[in-house]
Amino acid sequence: MAADPSGASGRSSEDEVAAFFRAAPPLRDRDRVAGELAEFVDRHSGTTGSGGRGLAGVVCITSGGTTVPLEQRCVRYIDNFSSGQRGAASTEYFLKAGYAVILIYRRGSKQPYCRFLSEDSFLEFFELGEESEIQVPDSHATVVKTAISNYWKATDEGLLLKLPFTTIFEYLQLLQMVSTEMNCLGQHGMFYLAAAVSDFYVPWESMAKHKIESASGPLNMQLNQVPKMLFILRKLWAPSAFCVSFKLETDPDILLQKAEVALRKYGMNVVVANELANYKDVVVMVTSNGRTTVQRPSKEHDVEEQLIDLLVKMHSEHIM
Amino acid sequence: MAADPSGASGRSSEDEVAAFFRAAPPLRDRDRVAGELAEFVDRHSGTTGSGGRGLAGVVCITSGGTTVPLEQRCVRYIDNFSSGQRGAASTEYFLKAGYAVILIYRRGSKQPYCRFLSEDSFLEFFELGEESEIQVPDSHATVVKTAISNYWKATDEGLLLKLPFTTIFEYLQLLQMVSTEMNCLGQHGMFYLAAAVSDFYVPWESMAKHKIESASGPLNMQLNQVPKMLFILRKLWAPSAFCVSFKLETDPDILLQKAEVALRKYGMNVVVANELANYKDVVVMVTSNGRTTVQRPSKEHDVEEQLIDLLVKMHSEHIM
Repeated sequence: MAADPSGASGRSSEDEVAAFFRAAPPLRDRDRVAGELAEFVDRHSGTTGSGGRGLAGVVCITSGGTTVPLEQRCVRYIDNFSSGQRGAASTEYFLKAGYAVILIYRRGSKQPYCRFLSEDSFLEFFELGEESEIQVPDSHATVVKTAISNYWKATDEGLLLKLPFTTIFEYLQLLQMVSTEMNCLGQHGMFYLAAAVSDFYVPWESMAKHKIESASGPLNMQLNQVPKMLFILRKLWAPSAFCVSFKLETDPDILLQKAEVALRKYGMNVVVANELANYKDVVVMVTSNGRTTVQRPSKEHDVEEQLIDLLVKMHSEHIM
Repeated sequence: MAADPSGASGRSSEDEVAAFFRAAPPLRDRDRVAGELAEFVDRHSGTTGSGGRGLAGVVCITSGGTTVPLEQRCVRYIDNFSSGQRGAASTEYFLKAGYAVILIYRRGSKQPYCRFLSEDSFLEFFELGEESEIQVPDSHATVVKTAISNYWKATDEGLLLKLPFTTIFEYLQLLQMVSTEMNCLGQHGMFYLAAAVSDFYVPWESMAKHKIESASGPLNMQLNQVPKMLFILRKLWAPSAFCVSFKLETDPDILLQKAEVALRKYGMNVVVANELANYKDVVVMVTSNGRTTVQRPSKEHDVEEQLIDLLVKMHSEHIM
């Protein structure tokens, strides 16, 4: 593809990306996060591949929707629908497959090992016995105990690093930090970008400082496009990593075509296409070799189980 | 105040409200919700006041932020910041004060009795013992056990009805259903409107059917004003009830003035003014008799404890 100075390809220039980061409010706790991240990657970098304990790799999973604040002291924001179900389930299967996982997740979204618990009424899973001991009704005992046990296994083994975000500014800064840090892992690194990232935003400096007044009639808003970071991740931040991105659409007629375009435009290894209406039941893996449909075999299984099985195989081929 | 056909007073006409409801997507499960609601109000209507078991009253608490979908098959939406902390805490204190509570809450927002548990990692509160029994570390044992015990007490006594919403359309339909149902309680009914309700929305019929395309440059949106339902609630739906609404601002210079305006315009009994910067620590109760500042006495107490104590006293004066 020829150089495209106009940006009409949908690729953002490095200048646009740099300008976005310069104008973004700085990440709180940046130093602490950077420290945790460096320690995590360093600890696992020696153990991936044939030389180490046989860790299959390190995967960065992104999960949940980003918010776009409409005011600096934010009362209102635009959000992208995403429960975080996909990212939480995928974290569990990647850990099971022997990966270390960096989970960049939206605060309050579904979490690994407790995604089946309704957050609105999880106290319903517990009761007090006669001597005030905590009990779980038999109907839920297995799932709750398995959840607690798996959660602590992953935590105690140091295989899971969780980094929360809320806004698009936090998300993209975290993604940049994680991917540049993971660059040292080369082909052993993997990105599994399941977060629902906003395409539009209000630049911080042009944002209303206070809550927008409601008394003065209809509200007109103009939102700018968020620079496409996937291309920069691929080109600059972590060029050797195995990259999986997601494409969600509500209109099935344009879904696969848009996934093909994203595959080429951003140089992804895989684009996973999914429809809002049935994203829990079926996805299509789009690669340069063709398409593979992955269907949930039954209600007892997650579609992520087979999806991640296939991705892990592709990643090990990528490494070889 | 004179009649105001222009709507410049900020009051919405009955016609505007009716038009909003006609155009809104119908509430799912409307019949089931209506049945549960009628049963709940009916069961408690005989027990309020001097004639019954001495229930102090029935309060409708609204909690959390409403979403405004930008697409019919919704991927993107505008949201209002609200954790639901205020509504969850207030539910606990109203139950303690002898009220039956109808909690209209945002799905996924903080819930009564478990608002202190971080939803991102509540599995951390539990461990498995040597025989796979569930244990709570001593450091958390008291809070977790108290939460479970209080939750089941309120549930078993049938004093708490929880009705979830996500969108502004669902929220306003629920508020209308609850308030017209509670009208039979007369002065024993109370509204405590702590939800963060959007001022703007995109009318359903003018909404994009599918996910808005991101490839075609900046996004321009025009949002209409949501009709002000408080005035209609007061005038038509439940005219004898005791009404408390909330005013949140980020700019302290305009907060109290806006609270005074809301008090008069919508005929509220109390407007609780709070600032985003310190809403957990201090609120100002604005009434026609003046202002009362309520300050959180210490980190071990909620500001809602004293606030609800004062409101309960005012409500019992209202009944007499």
